[in-house]
Amino acid sequence: MLNERAYALGSNRSAIRDLFEYGCARAAVVGRENVFDFSLGNPSIPTPEAVHTAIREVLEQTDPVELHGYTSAVGDLAARQAIADDLRGRYGASVSPGEIFLTCGAAPALVAVFGALTFPGAEILAIAPYFPEYRVFVEGVGARFAEVPPDVPDFQINLEALARCLNEKTAAVIVNSPNNPAGTVYTAETLARLGALLARKSAEYGHPIYIVADEPYRELVYGGAAAPFLPAIYPSTIVCYSYSKSLSLPGERIGYVYVPRAAADGEALYAAVAGAARNAGHVCAPSLWQKVIARCAAVRPNLAAYDRNRRALYGGLTALGYEVAKPDGAFYLFVKAPGGDANAFSEKAKRRDVLVVPGDDFGCPGYVRLCYCVKYETIERSLPLFRALLTD
Amino acid sequence: MLNERAYALGSNRSAIRDLFEYGCARAAVVGRENVFDFSLGNPSIPTPEAVHTAIREVLEQTDPVELHGYTSAVGDLAARQAIADDLRGRYGASVSPGEIFLTCGAAPALVAVFGALTFPGAEILAIAPYFPEYRVFVEGVGARFAEVPPDVPDFQINLEALARCLNEKTAAVIVNSPNNPAGTVYTAETLARLGALLARKSAEYGHPIYIVADEPYRELVYGGAAAPFLPAIYPSTIVCYSYSKSLSLPGERIGYVYVPRAAADGEALYAAVAGAARNAGHVCAPSLWQKVIARCAAVRPNLAAYDRNRRALYGGLTALGYEVAKPDGAFYLFVKAPGGDANAFSEKAKRRDVLVVPGDDFGCPGYVRLCYCVKYETIERSLPLFRALLTD
Repeated sequence: MLNERAYALGSNRSAIRDLFEYGCARAAVVGRENVFDFSLGNPSIPTPEAVHTAIREVLEQTDPVELHGYTSAVGDLAARQAIADDLRGRYGASVSPGEIFLTCGAAPALVAVFGALTFPGAEILAIAPYFPEYRVFVEGVGARFAEVPPDVPDFQINLEALARCLNEKTAAVIVNSPNNPAGTVYTAETLARLGALLARKSAEYGHPIYIVADEPYRELVYGGAAAPFLPAIYPSTIVCYSYSKSLSLPGERIGYVYVPRAAADGEALYAAVAGAARNAGHVCAPSLWQKVIARCAAVRPNLAAYDRNRRALYGGLTALGYEVAKPDGAFYLFVKAPGGDANAFSEKAKRRDVLVVPGDDFGCPGYVRLCYCVKYETIERSLPLFRALLTD
Repeated sequence: MLNERAYALGSNRSAIRDLFEYGCARAAVVGRENVFDFSLGNPSIPTPEAVHTAIREVLEQTDPVELHGYTSAVGDLAARQAIADDLRGRYGASVSPGEIFLTCGAAPALVAVFGALTFPGAEILAIAPYFPEYRVFVEGVGARFAEVPPDVPDFQINLEALARCLNEKTAAVIVNSPNNPAGTVYTAETLARLGALLARKSAEYGHPIYIVADEPYRELVYGGAAAPFLPAIYPSTIVCYSYSKSLSLPGERIGYVYVPRAAADGEALYAAVAGAARNAGHVCAPSLWQKVIARCAAVRPNLAAYDRNRRALYGGLTALGYEVAKPDGAFYLFVKAPGGDANAFSEKAKRRDVLVVPGDDFGCPGYVRLCYCVKYETIERSLPLFRALLTD
């Protein structure tokens, strides 16, 4: 007499987690340095020193009852102001603190936004390849999850395919750029065409189709690439953000939702996001971290280590003949599995203690995801193994 | 085309929050010291020094990538071990880390537990007076919320009334002791009778009726009172706990669910709690706070200030002739509204800048809740106003 869906979600573990645990078990046998674990997107650069300085200052300078006390559900004004100022400074957008809602990271932010947008019968679209938890969160709020086929081999957006997926029940399209798992950054041109399509279809259906921009990797871009600011392209965009990747704070659970007042029904939507968050047990984002973000919203990561890894792994694999999507952002490579069967390739790689995640759960069979948040030596030493895997 | 329930939850603010904001506005006019705000249950004693020592040690001694990294969804083993050890030491129960699931506080813990227990058509019972958000969380997971009438004037449990509320759709009964808003502690005798009733009814209906023990106030007991350990009385008890009140960390969002393996379907239930948490956007509890709790699970609050307030306010009000439930725990007094109309009394009190919350939202009209997390002087100076209110 338990909830069947909850039991299934709690007992069917993800392929990524399974691989990670397999790697831990193998490390105990062959040594951590001999496991080439590209499975888990866990930031490997430390949080910037400015963050630790801010923690110390906040602890020294704030009355403890205030420091650790409840904030309002939307979050401390100082943190929301700092985030609004940072967005305004970078993108020239008129962002106000009243459009920001602080959350315990991007996952509950997405749950709140999907919950707010789900009218009876609503569908929410994800563009393959996509982060597998989108399906869990969308179905969890009672919406139908639908997927747009991938744009092979560039992993931009297949707009013709997306247009065919739209219908009068479409509430939103999830846009995740820089993309997990493809590592691609959608171009301004791609996004402008998406915006034009959604504007036309919104008018046709008589209700807004929102973009939900999941942007934990916004700052993780390389070689001059930049992720365009979507609300400037399509006003009915709701941004979900997390400091997990940009400030290497994935365990601390601090992020936000930005609901532009200029979005369709912007004011009501902000209230609905707050209500959906409350429904899911949101009280406030961790208060110490709110005060740190008030001081660090403009701090940027030092990406040198990721960039070096990216170039080494992308260069090494393409030189070996692997087909790899151009990795302009995040910290993933998306690689076409030699032979075409990603699960078979992942199994074969496991036998050489190389851990790569099959793309099936990302809605993109035939590809594997490699996370390059690893030591540089791991990449160097893995390349001969990738060479051997071509003939295994 | 937004979600109607989410919009309603986000735009209909709670009576408590409204009163609190009214108090802030009045403070700007008449001065903070002249507003007698008994509305909000925000701890007023600082977190124990041991907690700040632990934060500093953790920051100094832990590699930042590990310190701020993802933990497993269930939480760091060290924190779960410390919690299990503490429970075992205090209650002699055989608690293991594998029965503990760390959460971002009690609210998402409750959402996860209700989500795990909700079979199609399920009902979950709350015993009046109760914390109003229970209704939000229960209805949010799709269960029916039902309430057991209060046991006036002692605010124990009216077991005859509770028995009449049970039926084959009853999945769980929420037990909140020490109680918000009544400040009462259910006695061992009350709980033993409840356990016997639920055991009999579980057998009759052929499925377990769980107790969900919401225990953020477990340590806040006075004058020799103690909250009995419910899993020892009724094995199918799931405990939701938060460090918000005991360690004065309400904004930091750290708590846990304890699912005894001895509960009916205990192992599957733990998986279902994990799945329901994932469904609501849980990734892990804030990692810094997990590491603090690993060191501070056995730290207890210094309750002297609350106890002094409790005795002054209870003594003062009863001497004036107010009828007040015996306040053995938490930091609330539940007071019968003179004249019987709690809303009228609350409005009348507002005109003297005394803020008390009507009991209607707690399922108990005719009473008002006073939170005594205030300065001692506030209590002393409020008593003449409470005297005047008797003849206003």
